[in-house]
Amino acid sequence: MDIKAGLLNGDKRACARLISLIENEDAQAVELLKELYSMTGNARVIGITGPPGAGKSTVTDKLAKLLRKRNKKVGIIAVDPTSPFTGGAILGDRVRMSDLNTDPGVFIRSMGTRGALGGLSKAANAAVKVLDIFGMDYIFIETVGVGQSEVDIVKLADTVVMVMVPGLGDDIQAIKAGIMEIGDVFAVNKSDRDGAERTATEIEVMLDFNRGAAYRPPVVNIIAKDNNNIDKLMEAIDDHYEYMQNSGNYKIRKRNSLKTEIIDIFKYNVVKSIEQKSENTNIIDQLVELALDKSIDPYTAALRLLKELRSTES
Amino acid sequence: MDIKAGLLNGDKRACARLISLIENEDAQAVELLKELYSMTGNARVIGITGPPGAGKSTVTDKLAKLLRKRNKKVGIIAVDPTSPFTGGAILGDRVRMSDLNTDPGVFIRSMGTRGALGGLSKAANAAVKVLDIFGMDYIFIETVGVGQSEVDIVKLADTVVMVMVPGLGDDIQAIKAGIMEIGDVFAVNKSDRDGAERTATEIEVMLDFNRGAAYRPPVVNIIAKDNNNIDKLMEAIDDHYEYMQNSGNYKIRKRNSLKTEIIDIFKYNVVKSIEQKSENTNIIDQLVELALDKSIDPYTAALRLLKELRSTES
Repeated sequence: MDIKAGLLNGDKRACARLISLIENEDAQAVELLKELYSMTGNARVIGITGPPGAGKSTVTDKLAKLLRKRNKKVGIIAVDPTSPFTGGAILGDRVRMSDLNTDPGVFIRSMGTRGALGGLSKAANAAVKVLDIFGMDYIFIETVGVGQSEVDIVKLADTVVMVMVPGLGDDIQAIKAGIMEIGDVFAVNKSDRDGAERTATEIEVMLDFNRGAAYRPPVVNIIAKDNNNIDKLMEAIDDHYEYMQNSGNYKIRKRNSLKTEIIDIFKYNVVKSIEQKSENTNIIDQLVELALDKSIDPYTAALRLLKELRSTES
Repeated sequence: MDIKAGLLNGDKRACARLISLIENEDAQAVELLKELYSMTGNARVIGITGPPGAGKSTVTDKLAKLLRKRNKKVGIIAVDPTSPFTGGAILGDRVRMSDLNTDPGVFIRSMGTRGALGGLSKAANAAVKVLDIFGMDYIFIETVGVGQSEVDIVKLADTVVMVMVPGLGDDIQAIKAGIMEIGDVFAVNKSDRDGAERTATEIEVMLDFNRGAAYRPPVVNIIAKDNNNIDKLMEAIDDHYEYMQNSGNYKIRKRNSLKTEIIDIFKYNVVKSIEQKSENTNIIDQLVELALDKSIDPYTAALRLLKELRSTES
């Protein structure tokens, strides 16, 4: 398969193949991505996150369908970092509605840690680039969970939609406090349920803490499964994007996420480098054994690795 | 304050101070930890994790109280990685029961990302060492959430207790699939609630997939708030520890976690190194600007950083 030609001619299989190759650290695939890097930057990237059970995939599906009616091409990357062992992406595969899958203007990809050799955040970043080059107008990154790695992934987005839901447990207070600052738009899903008003109020109260900010994230009540207020949610997303553009914050966010990306790839390269070196010298395992019997501490061991890396020929 | 003397003489304030200093990358504190590293390895480390609302802190508290009755000294590290901005650790501070706090044989610490300059997993690892040196017999690491970073933290533990609860949403299937493999012992909390039996069955079904394994994690029904079956849970934890010791898996796990720790510190040092270099040369920002206007791709930018690092004097 000529992946480059396929990708530029709208062949979904080429798109899927390239993402798989990049996940597997295929050198030629990474070269292709480098070559086509200048074609990126046209898609709008929307992050969808929130606690388990909030209905994130339904929200994504409904937003995607709305955009399809506007003749926009839509990419969806469903990221499931919860499983470092089974590789995640189980949920995404299972519940993703099939009617979107057969739409030629929609590309859907589930990603877990299993496929992503170089780390999920790095792979998700690359997948966004591939879909961008592929000509998608909008790219959704949807993550299950609310931990640090999910936050890292969703930070790739131009706009982050935080999907909340009434009636979550006690821990939700802590989660809310944590994720509040990454949400650009809040959606209270299943807003016909008891407690929806309270949930919305709680979010507003938290947003009040940041009252002085130039931009205040809107809170939109939706019922995603009934397509209720999905257009209002999209409007809020568009408003945020416009604000970002006009205020100059868009460029700042892009700069920060690019910096994070470069450092992440750098860290990955560095570890790969020392691991390659260690294939001959066995230095990593030697240091681990020394630390295991306490003749060296882990801090000193790490410094030795850095020294070893620097002594390596480039 | 003479931290070393305080630490070795059971002064909780010295213990707390050392953890804070290490979080802040204080060089002398890290030196002290290096010096006392050979005193570590005596405490048993128990990870408590599970989805939001499962009652993890109640489970930890009840287990801690049980161990106190057995005259064991107990350290509790409540990690909240959900908030990269506010720093997390809000929940831990708020709900932690105060009667444990006043017990001289108990040391409790909440940690969030705010304090942890070098990353939460690295800081939690250091805090475990401090409590180990401090003479705690048992150290609990409790994490809110079920993402990748939580998994990384909980992997420090000798035994990981996965606290589940009936009646969670749809996403829980995916989470279960993901976390199943890190759970050494499963606790179904609030087991008097509707659906508890179903939850236990679901866990057993998942465990069946791994039927051939030498060790099958037990599923214990508990009602933590009523102290119901907490002794049975502790027994299951002890059984797992014994199995790990006898099978030789304990050493394998320690080796793996030590390797991860050394690589993590190494990665941190490497990034710090290139950032220091960049203070003079401004190379990171320069590369970001080049990538921003697409005259360079992020992969090439990262390679340049590696080259720069290698050219740096040690």
